[in-house]
Amino acid sequence: MKIVALAGGVGGAKLAQGLALALAPEDLTVIVNTGDDFELFGLRISPDLDTVCYTLAGLANKHTGWGLKDETWQVLTHLKELGAPDWFKLGDRDLATHLQRTRLIREGMRLSQVTKNLCERWGVIQPVLPMTDSEVATKLVTADGTWLDFQEYFVKQACSPQIVDIRFKGVSSAMPAHGVLDALEQADAVIICPSNPYLSILPILSIPGMDAGLIQKNIIAVSPIISGQAVKGPLAKMIHDLTGQPADATFAAAFYRERFDLAGYVMDDQDRSLVNSVRAWGIICETCDTMMPGEVDRLRVARKALSLVESCSTRTENL
Amino acid sequence: MKIVALAGGVGGAKLAQGLALALAPEDLTVIVNTGDDFELFGLRISPDLDTVCYTLAGLANKHTGWGLKDETWQVLTHLKELGAPDWFKLGDRDLATHLQRTRLIREGMRLSQVTKNLCERWGVIQPVLPMTDSEVATKLVTADGTWLDFQEYFVKQACSPQIVDIRFKGVSSAMPAHGVLDALEQADAVIICPSNPYLSILPILSIPGMDAGLIQKNIIAVSPIISGQAVKGPLAKMIHDLTGQPADATFAAAFYRERFDLAGYVMDDQDRSLVNSVRAWGIICETCDTMMPGEVDRLRVARKALSLVESCSTRTENL
Repeated sequence: MKIVALAGGVGGAKLAQGLALALAPEDLTVIVNTGDDFELFGLRISPDLDTVCYTLAGLANKHTGWGLKDETWQVLTHLKELGAPDWFKLGDRDLATHLQRTRLIREGMRLSQVTKNLCERWGVIQPVLPMTDSEVATKLVTADGTWLDFQEYFVKQACSPQIVDIRFKGVSSAMPAHGVLDALEQADAVIICPSNPYLSILPILSIPGMDAGLIQKNIIAVSPIISGQAVKGPLAKMIHDLTGQPADATFAAAFYRERFDLAGYVMDDQDRSLVNSVRAWGIICETCDTMMPGEVDRLRVARKALSLVESCSTRTENL
Repeated sequence: MKIVALAGGVGGAKLAQGLALALAPEDLTVIVNTGDDFELFGLRISPDLDTVCYTLAGLANKHTGWGLKDETWQVLTHLKELGAPDWFKLGDRDLATHLQRTRLIREGMRLSQVTKNLCERWGVIQPVLPMTDSEVATKLVTADGTWLDFQEYFVKQACSPQIVDIRFKGVSSAMPAHGVLDALEQADAVIICPSNPYLSILPILSIPGMDAGLIQKNIIAVSPIISGQAVKGPLAKMIHDLTGQPADATFAAAFYRERFDLAGYVMDDQDRSLVNSVRAWGIICETCDTMMPGEVDRLRVARKALSLVESCSTRTENL
């Protein structure tokens, strides 16, 4: 059973690791959001790609949720001495990633090739693909009409501005990265990780050609909302800003079914009372403990999502 | 007495520090070669500017002759793990300099402003100016017609290729950096540090407008050759490659007097026998111990050069 996972940063990385533990390496491809990519100090930084790769490599820092374990901070210390901005926490090992990525891109490599090159060094055996090799930049439109860069909103302003819209600059001329459409074509199902639908998954879905790649696939999503809250990040606040409604665990199911035929949905056990609302939309819905602090948890949620893929396949065959 | 010093890397930095110890801060301006500047990992690196500034700041590594004291190497270690080139030894603190410089230039600052900004952080109180805010790149033409980048020749190939010519790419459209011509206009004398005349001083002299700035100045040079050898670097070999002659301590005097009216020349005590050859050209010439390992030595050579400035001024007044 070949699976494509769509992932953003931390939550996506956790489920991607669970899927990597559950599946043979050749049966999993992870497609990662690059709408958060940005330049800092002239370096090309791909936060979600790095988080997914570091996690799959077993190099991620489990305490912070971002960056590398056993990281050192020599350069950042000296940058502060020079009065440089330090809002983005550049560790020394992480910086080596950004330097090498920038060098390879300047030498003419596509981001997908660079990612493959880095993954080989890190020992990541599953294909990890950026959603696109083009430059697409997520912008957040605030109530006063300002377009904020993603990092400006997410890190510097700590998600405090009220958001009225989201745009993906450059998306209309972007193409799926080398390998993305092939992976989708060969996939038996697509699993959407519990990443922020607005900021992590919508950019992927917005790349021209991606919708065609998703047609006739069994698509399973895992809820990024547990009991009205996002595990991490600004999703609950964004849902309220953008819909006027409080966040609940059915949100991502409703969000995705507007865009394609969502076949299955996994929510947390705490949201068991909402299962019937989702099933009423014709979606197979089950619950489990979806918190994924450790590898055992990640494998559990991956297996639950994969069991829904099985159920969907049975459903399709019975139709 | 206001002095402008022209400097390249290590030798230039040492005499610049000697002059900084001998003169009031407002009486010294150091103009530094940027022909060696290059990009690595997308970062803007100015090796000679950094060497001069680190030395004036008391931050230079006295053992290596380049880079910073108490340097750490975390990022370089991780870059090697990623298979990145490691021929240019990027220390963590040095890297912070390159990151901040790259950031400020990308924000629209001129290199001269960036250098001022960094010097303020490092506590360097003498003005240090790049020769130009434009991009000028030193290229070495080898016997087979190849144009080598400076760093390719100097670091990667360890100065081994035979050189037949030197070019400064971009120089014809370059201008002296902001502040350079003012400093020259206000200067009573110009001291040319014991840097490589071909690689460090000729790029400075080649910037359009620089020759006019040097007219009617008393110009004193310190020999970069001691007893037929360069203290550091490929100068002796280059002299042989380019002139067919062995290097001797009169070389820089001959080199500069072809280009302007050299008033004074300091050689090492070991080259005392050559003093009369230089004096025969109408140049005031004296010797001292020109090796400058420590601050006392740097001050000694600076004072010798300044004493020649005094002698030249007397000569001029007597004409």
